[in-house]
Amino acid sequence: MPDTILKTRAHGLLAASGRSDVPPFMVMDVMAAAARIEAAGGHVIHMEVGQPAAPAPKVAIEAAQAALAHGRIEYTAALGTPSLRARISRHYRDAYGCAVDPGQIVVTTGSSGAFILSFLALFEPGDRVAVTVPGYPPYRHILTALGCEPVLIETHADKRHAMTAEDLLAAHREKPLKGVLVASPANPTGTMMSREALTSLIHAADDAGIRFISDEIYHGLDYSFPAVTAAELSPNALVINSFSKYFCMTGWRVGWMVVPKPLVRSMERLQQNLSISVPTLSQIAAEAAFDGRAQMEDIKHGYQENRRILTAGLPQAGLTDFLPADGAFYLYADVSKFTSDSFDFAKQMLEQAHVAATPGSDFDPIHGKSYIRFSYASSTEDMHEAVARISKWLGQGGPK
Amino acid sequence: MPDTILKTRAHGLLAASGRSDVPPFMVMDVMAAAARIEAAGGHVIHMEVGQPAAPAPKVAIEAAQAALAHGRIEYTAALGTPSLRARISRHYRDAYGCAVDPGQIVVTTGSSGAFILSFLALFEPGDRVAVTVPGYPPYRHILTALGCEPVLIETHADKRHAMTAEDLLAAHREKPLKGVLVASPANPTGTMMSREALTSLIHAADDAGIRFISDEIYHGLDYSFPAVTAAELSPNALVINSFSKYFCMTGWRVGWMVVPKPLVRSMERLQQNLSISVPTLSQIAAEAAFDGRAQMEDIKHGYQENRRILTAGLPQAGLTDFLPADGAFYLYADVSKFTSDSFDFAKQMLEQAHVAATPGSDFDPIHGKSYIRFSYASSTEDMHEAVARISKWLGQGGPK
Repeated sequence: MPDTILKTRAHGLLAASGRSDVPPFMVMDVMAAAARIEAAGGHVIHMEVGQPAAPAPKVAIEAAQAALAHGRIEYTAALGTPSLRARISRHYRDAYGCAVDPGQIVVTTGSSGAFILSFLALFEPGDRVAVTVPGYPPYRHILTALGCEPVLIETHADKRHAMTAEDLLAAHREKPLKGVLVASPANPTGTMMSREALTSLIHAADDAGIRFISDEIYHGLDYSFPAVTAAELSPNALVINSFSKYFCMTGWRVGWMVVPKPLVRSMERLQQNLSISVPTLSQIAAEAAFDGRAQMEDIKHGYQENRRILTAGLPQAGLTDFLPADGAFYLYADVSKFTSDSFDFAKQMLEQAHVAATPGSDFDPIHGKSYIRFSYASSTEDMHEAVARISKWLGQGGPK
Repeated sequence: MPDTILKTRAHGLLAASGRSDVPPFMVMDVMAAAARIEAAGGHVIHMEVGQPAAPAPKVAIEAAQAALAHGRIEYTAALGTPSLRARISRHYRDAYGCAVDPGQIVVTTGSSGAFILSFLALFEPGDRVAVTVPGYPPYRHILTALGCEPVLIETHADKRHAMTAEDLLAAHREKPLKGVLVASPANPTGTMMSREALTSLIHAADDAGIRFISDEIYHGLDYSFPAVTAAELSPNALVINSFSKYFCMTGWRVGWMVVPKPLVRSMERLQQNLSISVPTLSQIAAEAAFDGRAQMEDIKHGYQENRRILTAGLPQAGLTDFLPADGAFYLYADVSKFTSDSFDFAKQMLEQAHVAATPGSDFDPIHGKSYIRFSYASSTEDMHEAVARISKWLGQGGPK
């Protein structure tokens, strides 16, 4: 019989851990409300999810079909199939003129898998890691779940939402940082950092001994000027990318990292233990996807047209305060002249105008209540319709 | 200009974190050596990897092909597609006569994804979690990477490698445990816990306020008596399973958990942030896989025959010390009468007899040097050949 002292049927047995207490996405509530409207026969224009409306490149789908016809879908090497790693390496030469050794490529289960691996490999519990707000919410939440402290660096529209070397070093002086993570093009703002701005930030991080992580998931979707990869700016930078956005392969869950050589072995051991390997069929499709770039360029041109429609139409509809984003497929609009609560604004816009967008609070716990994110990764017709609906809705007074 | 005090180009910039310092698998070295032998024209019998030689059920492959033909492979809900969750729930009724609400099913990126989610959701950094040795190495390594302390409970052949309530409570008295994880059928021993043994352990854990995690990845592959699911023994137990083993879907990376209701929302928020969602095509194939059970039963009968060949043949070949495992597709043989270092034994057996197996040190840092794991998930012909080769090798004196 166990000791009676152990028999205190613990109160906490059914409670979740403190570190798992990460916030949900408000966009999920928006999506659920949109589904209710559609179930009741309404037609919703979806601008809330950061997901391309188009499927993967035809060649990628064909490669997956051929693999399925062929036989067993086995585990692969933990770092990814050698041929996919080599193909990604070639992509750096083709797209950026930048030499990246295939041995530095780590294939991951989406960029999500890359965040987990890189945060575990680079940071100890308690380490401080700078991220921008507004920014992609899982940066903060994964860091927290893994015991790190996200340090929120506020960025502002007047500096095109870029984190500067001064911002970084000010936070570092306050209390030393171990890492910094930025994205260009950025989510939710669609803004990009120039080569000079990115170089300056990376060099400041290197000089201060702060690990630089560059989230390049929206690379390829640049409209104002070509996005620059951190891989060519510093051998210490860790680059994260994915097939989800440019290659329209969200549900495939496949991405990659460019990892400084001294870290590759740690990444391999972590991936062996944490994942065994990345979905095999997705790796096969991803490798072929690079041959489908012409098809993806057509889709990108569609986003460009969508962006033109919104940047021209939204101001006429009454939404005047946003940056003409340089990349990705987002516009981040200041709606503070209509509301003090963008979640309520999004809710009413959905209910009354049947246009779904994401409240800024998902991206920015500080100023998000003033903002709405529109995703323009769907059809051109939807963009025209969205402008018309918002125009009519705001013309009738907008939110109550 | 940054402060000069910050300009100490940190020595540690290229170093990996302490928590990422998990051991590699020795089996990887065995696999690399096997590949070298094959590259030189040798024919290796592969018994080192825990991976079925057969492909996924035909109906699963067809479902994936149909989905690919249909169009976009999107993100799914974080907890998994509603239809897959419902199908898994039905599986509990069909296979165990056990009612599990679909709302308690959480689809994961393989059992690997389930370990990460469950350890994060259940345990705080520093929490002690009991695992058996020998056991699946990532249990220990994922716990360590996530800041928990794996508490190694030694199990022995004379008790069929089962952790008992006494073992658990003794470790708990030493210093309180927050969790315990067991597998039945177990890797690497293939042993199973009876209903009574499992019930006794779960009740002891519940009474002491210790979270019980049941890794049921080898369920379905039981030869001596039916495996019992923890889901029917305690509402507090968390069950982990996968499509990798019984359904031969390793490279698809799809598994699931049965989660106590109060924890589902935490799991959902964690999965939203850590993974977004599980590979979509794999979810579609997994749902169809349940209709391919007849095909999988044939494969299981093949394993049974393989097991018969090994349990009869290995003792004649000279390997006498192993348990006639109840399930999974492993035999764990004591080779201490031949060697004091099973890694060296495995290396020599591979080089001289061209039979690849896994040294026990991967599974047991304490006594693993005395053991070798054989996986019998491949063909019957391979089993006959393996017995013949080992017999000849040991007959000629075995390891030098």
